[in-house]
Amino acid sequence: MKLQLSTWPEVEAYLKTSTAILIPIGSTEQHGPTGFVGTDALCPEILAGGVAEQTGALIAPTVSVGMAQHHLGFAGSMTLRPSTLIAVLQDWINSLARHGFDRFYFLNGHGGNIATVSAAFSEVYAQASLGAAPSNRPALSCRLRNWWDAPEVQTLAKQLFGGSDGQHATASEISLTYYGYPEAAKRAEKGAAEMSPRVAPSGGFTDATDYRRKFPDGRMGSDPTLASVENGRQLYDTAVRALSADWLSFANGR
Amino acid sequence: MKLQLSTWPEVEAYLKTSTAILIPIGSTEQHGPTGFVGTDALCPEILAGGVAEQTGALIAPTVSVGMAQHHLGFAGSMTLRPSTLIAVLQDWINSLARHGFDRFYFLNGHGGNIATVSAAFSEVYAQASLGAAPSNRPALSCRLRNWWDAPEVQTLAKQLFGGSDGQHATASEISLTYYGYPEAAKRAEKGAAEMSPRVAPSGGFTDATDYRRKFPDGRMGSDPTLASVENGRQLYDTAVRALSADWLSFANGR
Amino acid sequence: MKLQLSTWPEVEAYLKTSTAILIPIGSTEQHGPTGFVGTDALCPEILAGGVAEQTGALIAPTVSVGMAQHHLGFAGSMTLRPSTLIAVLQDWINSLARHGFDRFYFLNGHGGNIATVSAAFSEVYAQASLGAAPSNRPALSCRLRNWWDAPEVQTLAKQLFGGSDGQHATASEISLTYYGYPEAAKRAEKGAAEMSPRVAPSGGFTDATDYRRKFPDGRMGSDPTLASVENGRQLYDTAVRALSADWLSFANGR
Amino acid sequence: MKLQLSTWPEVEAYLKTSTAILIPIGSTEQHGPTGFVGTDALCPEILAGGVAEQTGALIAPTVSVGMAQHHLGFAGSMTLRPSTLIAVLQDWINSLARHGFDRFYFLNGHGGNIATVSAAFSEVYAQASLGAAPSNRPALSCRLRNWWDAPEVQTLAKQLFGGSDGQHATASEISLTYYGYPEAAKRAEKGAAEMSPRVAPSGGFTDATDYRRKFPDGRMGSDPTLASVENGRQLYDTAVRALSADWLSFANGR
Amino acid sequence: MKLQLSTWPEVEAYLKTSTAILIPIGSTEQHGPTGFVGTDALCPEILAGGVAEQTGALIAPTVSVGMAQHHLGFAGSMTLRPSTLIAVLQDWINSLARHGFDRFYFLNGHGGNIATVSAAFSEVYAQASLGAAPSNRPALSCRLRNWWDAPEVQTLAKQLFGGSDGQHATASEISLTYYGYPEAAKRAEKGAAEMSPRVAPSGGFTDATDYRRKFPDGRMGSDPTLASVENGRQLYDTAVRALSADWLSFANGR
Amino acid sequence: MKLQLSTWPEVEAYLKTSTAILIPIGSTEQHGPTGFVGTDALCPEILAGGVAEQTGALIAPTVSVGMAQHHLGFAGSMTLRPSTLIAVLQDWINSLARHGFDRFYFLNGHGGNIATVSAAFSEVYAQASLGAAPSNRPALSCRLRNWWDAPEVQTLAKQLFGGSDGQHATASEISLTYYGYPEAAKRAEKGAAEMSPRVAPSGGFTDATDYRRKFPDGRMGSDPTLASVENGRQLYDTAVRALSADWLSFANGR
Ligand code: NI
Ligand code: NI
Ligand code: NI
Ligand code: NI
Ligand code: NI
Ligand code: NI
Repeated sequence: MKLQLSTWPEVEAYLKTSTAILIPIGSTEQHGPTGFVGTDALCPEILAGGVAEQTGALIAPTVSVGMAQHHLGFAGSMTLRPSTLIAVLQDWINSLARHGFDRFYFLNGHGGNIATVSAAFSEVYAQASLGAAPSNRPALSCRLRNWWDAPEVQTLAKQLFGGSDGQHATASEISLTYYGYPEAAKRAEKGAAEMSPRVAPSGGFTDATDYRRKFPDGRMGSDPTLASVENGRQLYDTAVRALSADWLSFANGR
Repeated sequence: MKLQLSTWPEVEAYLKTSTAILIPIGSTEQHGPTGFVGTDALCPEILAGGVAEQTGALIAPTVSVGMAQHHLGFAGSMTLRPSTLIAVLQDWINSLARHGFDRFYFLNGHGGNIATVSAAFSEVYAQASLGAAPSNRPALSCRLRNWWDAPEVQTLAKQLFGGSDGQHATASEISLTYYGYPEAAKRAEKGAAEMSPRVAPSGGFTDATDYRRKFPDGRMGSDPTLASVENGRQLYDTAVRALSADWLSFANGR
Repeated sequence: MKLQLSTWPEVEAYLKTSTAILIPIGSTEQHGPTGFVGTDALCPEILAGGVAEQTGALIAPTVSVGMAQHHLGFAGSMTLRPSTLIAVLQDWINSLARHGFDRFYFLNGHGGNIATVSAAFSEVYAQASLGAAPSNRPALSCRLRNWWDAPEVQTLAKQLFGGSDGQHATASEISLTYYGYPEAAKRAEKGAAEMSPRVAPSGGFTDATDYRRKFPDGRMGSDPTLASVENGRQLYDTAVRALSADWLSFANGR
Repeated sequence: MKLQLSTWPEVEAYLKTSTAILIPIGSTEQHGPTGFVGTDALCPEILAGGVAEQTGALIAPTVSVGMAQHHLGFAGSMTLRPSTLIAVLQDWINSLARHGFDRFYFLNGHGGNIATVSAAFSEVYAQASLGAAPSNRPALSCRLRNWWDAPEVQTLAKQLFGGSDGQHATASEISLTYYGYPEAAKRAEKGAAEMSPRVAPSGGFTDATDYRRKFPDGRMGSDPTLASVENGRQLYDTAVRALSADWLSFANGR
Repeated sequence: MKLQLSTWPEVEAYLKTSTAILIPIGSTEQHGPTGFVGTDALCPEILAGGVAEQTGALIAPTVSVGMAQHHLGFAGSMTLRPSTLIAVLQDWINSLARHGFDRFYFLNGHGGNIATVSAAFSEVYAQASLGAAPSNRPALSCRLRNWWDAPEVQTLAKQLFGGSDGQHATASEISLTYYGYPEAAKRAEKGAAEMSPRVAPSGGFTDATDYRRKFPDGRMGSDPTLASVENGRQLYDTAVRALSADWLSFANGR
Repeated sequence: MKLQLSTWPEVEAYLKTSTAILIPIGSTEQHGPTGFVGTDALCPEILAGGVAEQTGALIAPTVSVGMAQHHLGFAGSMTLRPSTLIAVLQDWINSLARHGFDRFYFLNGHGGNIATVSAAFSEVYAQASLGAAPSNRPALSCRLRNWWDAPEVQTLAKQLFGGSDGQHATASEISLTYYGYPEAAKRAEKGAAEMSPRVAPSGGFTDATDYRRKFPDGRMGSDPTLASVENGRQLYDTAVRALSADWLSFANGR
């Protein structure tokens, strides 16, 4: 059930059955010569659709721009400053809390979001801990889950891509978006011509200039030529199954 | 051309032909018993697709949650505080400006956004006017255009719905989203049973409690039972034509 | 009744008769070669005096610096960033709400304020809608009224100045301030020698540099040589009458 | 020369002779049963007029609402939070600095402003010290001067009022505003009937509730029945003389 | 070399040999019935002393209050909101960057800081990535290292405490502070009488109320009765050795 | 009793006897060629230890970085922007208020903090005055006391150093830190060779560049060659006695 395609009486009815909501959160940033700029937002959005089918979860709109300052050296990348992202998540959560939602499951597609989203949860909890939350409001509970976290997904990725899945513009995530958008994939994968070496370098980084110097085509540790619609389909099936179980456990307060 | 489905080298290529970008901006809020909560985000998103087809415009991800504090009395509605929305738009614009974008066309689907988005433009311009913008950056130019602004669209709406289009949960916007999501429409329009009177009341409002008291089912001045996929198709064709012309004029610096 | 010239027991007495307050809000910015830098603050301040005489309205001090980033290319212009102006209006309103004021009528003299003031109202309402307002506080109601809004005023301006009233440094507003400050007017109108063409160009603008390039002497679309004390007197009489009616209607909760 | 009554070419001309500006800053807060709510804003405004006559100083609009949280227990009192006032002063100073002003003389009428205004100066200086000021901007210099600071003024106050001048709603400041607004004074001084004891208590305070409990009619240590137009005239003459000398010294960079 | 005990010429001399600085960061929060409230600040402070002896590192003052909203249910616990902590770290880093420091090594003692400190690093990097850093400033590089990260330290802890080291109020950290403050330890360890069960429960938590309900005496998964000065000494020696190597590697730009 | 070396049950026990807490607050900034960068933080920290011994006061961790933008021209100096320091003090106070603390005694070592700390108190009080404090919380009371305020301390300083104590890097404060850290003192006092003239110049200043130009070695008006461990001991004894009395009076609500 997608919030954007529901009416308010339908949301009200949902609230009688569950006070949990699933919020896909991603990023808009370069994903190498063959990956979509929207990869990190599309992955959780695609998977959320599967989880909703399996479990009836209510899916909020996607937080499509996240914390990606280090990718700003590549055209099309966008970022929120961490302080802005914290304010955004506070407002989303505080809005939904007014209706009675009290369990917020963020399905994340971008490693760069993890720290700031966790900080945002603490900012929300701190409102309550410091006595500044609306006085009659129930306690809130937030979870951040990366779509690739489940052991089954990790195992499958290793099986499909060996050591060449990588850290950014991974074969996994690009497969998943190719599965979701096969037409666009045909166009994008032509970018492979520009890729060299086949497996990108790895390592740490600081700001956008530093990142681009170290990872000239944007990839980190990955060989996205291994990405395919079929691999994406397998990842989709596996991840949806694992995430559905995790969602149900969270939504049921465990 | 959708930013989310493009690779960074494709965006870089686009920037050689144009430094303008189209950003759909909407809201996530109740739209009466038969309208989608995402109506205001879906409308500009749907139309942006049409404009892109006609003109080759680059389409950013949608700002899906806007300023909708007055709708918080209805389940599923979400808001950013104006100060948060200003910070978000600053970050989006400043991110894209780093790549050379200097013309930002916000295609808006929500009347409640207009004031805050305009304020956000001023906040961005003020950075330059106060000498605080990055020193080597070209001047930026922003436009807010509501999808229903064009005279042709207004005429068509009047023709289709007479005086019952309304101000919120309008027959126009609901038709447009029904056209975009016909399956979901079949489900949503069942909510019409709850609607009474046929044309909702009109008037001013302040906060969410006040709004709900005055507009108990969420609609303002509208009769959304007049909405239909076919009406949506006509609105789509007319609006895409008008917006494409407006976009081209803006993108070409006029 | 001016707040600044009242004692607190007098304000307490006023509150027994009305919980509405009138707040003039303007700007400090260039108004062409013959207009006062304070034009936009002085106009609502002058008119507020007339409204107070007619209706007994309580007049707050004037918000004299508004959102005028686009005028910073001309000496003496000042601006608040929109985010600052929002914080200021929150504090003014929250202060007065503590005493029991719940109806805030902003009499505005500057087009550039409209968006940000509306956003500020939403920020204030959002406090209540998100459950963050002081718990025992009554609902607040805010109105923004431009002094030139009333049809009678528009008609009179057209009659006095034809098509040469303009958009900035208008013959109307300069007349009104000349009527209020006839001595200063004698000095200021000598600046007319520098004006050319007689009617200034019109059009859009972005930041301060862009504005100055397009409107080299600061005027937009106006011929302020048509301004006079006598014209100001007529505008004053007409506007005070219209605004008094509007104020009474607002103050009485309609 | 009042900024509000000058044209921008006149300000430009002034800047060729001086880059200093005088900014009256006060507060809008209770001043006991016989003092104007605007006392602290009116005093520096009145005196600034005198300094301008003597020295040709350019006078900015008055910051009429300052930091007065402790007075919010009395009707009509208004405050900016310190963090808001800091943002406001930054914007005022940064606006004027764009035109070449680099010496900012704040003529203060309210003890409660001193700490926050000093903090605001540090916030402005810190921009430069941290390398965040506009790169081509000259160093800025700010001074806060209370109108009652000069030894001659202190001596005169002692002579006029002995030990009953007090700390808040002082006989001095009320005299000065009575001198400036003799008609309003006639009305306000009727409030004296409510005053008891004749000299108000003194001491420390924290928030608004605490202040009202300790100082039930708003006065601190003062007997404002000693205030008169004639005393105000003497204070005016003495203070204008002292402040003019101080302004000239500051404006000339000493 | 402690910054607090150095003169500025000594710091200037240090900068000729290294542009790296070590900043202990901890928290002020309950650590169970026998642990110091300052445990998380004291641990990195104590270890920093050892690293400085071994390597000549310059040690900044300790960030003693971190992000600990979840501990506010226990007397003496303090927190910064994440947004505040981000502002603090920006200011510390921007201050030191003015002197030429460009490598910032945060030696952390508190798991609850990790997300927010990482977000703060991104906020600092984003300044550069968005073109808002001082224009002539070199790129900055930040590292967060938890004092317990090194494999040797983990091995030793396991050897000393088996599975009863725990997650909060761990036997390790309490040993380390007992080693640093043996007198205070004698007093504190009397609190063991109140501890039951011997090994505290584990699990997740949200806000302060939730934490206290789940962990009634404040400990998580630990048996701090195993803590001792002697165990602390061993941990100190091992951790100092590992951290010294890590510091040198970072300070030398690797 | 140091908070950092106490357990939470001990703090809980303290709260049954007193709801007051002493918070040393200083700065990290140059103190001339022979003074420690941490002088202003170390002084109140050292003295707080003495006050705690005499009175049993609970001592919070030290706010070690304050408002010192003007010292940033000298290596090692650090500052918080005033707006950041205000946020920090709000969080510290709001955290402790949750446990029942309602009297906050800031023992200050840095003149540059006074304005901002006072503004922070007002920000905290304003929360209550504007109705935004947690609803069930008792009124809070804050005091700022400079360690050198007491007449006995001033007298002793004059006796020890005559007119050469100065305003910054004073002989008094350097003596006090030498007394606290005699080993470090031996190293630091070698910097005296660089000092000339013997007594530093005095006067006003604005930003860091201005300060360094006027006070090239960092001192203001002082001759720190007069500093000694023995002088520090006398100052310590005198100040601890005076501060203990002041603390007791504050803690007991007078
Ligand atoms: Ni990714
Ligand atoms: Ni709509
Ligand atoms: Ni105007
Ligand atoms: Ni006063
Ligand atoms: Ni710990
Ligand atoms: Ni000092």
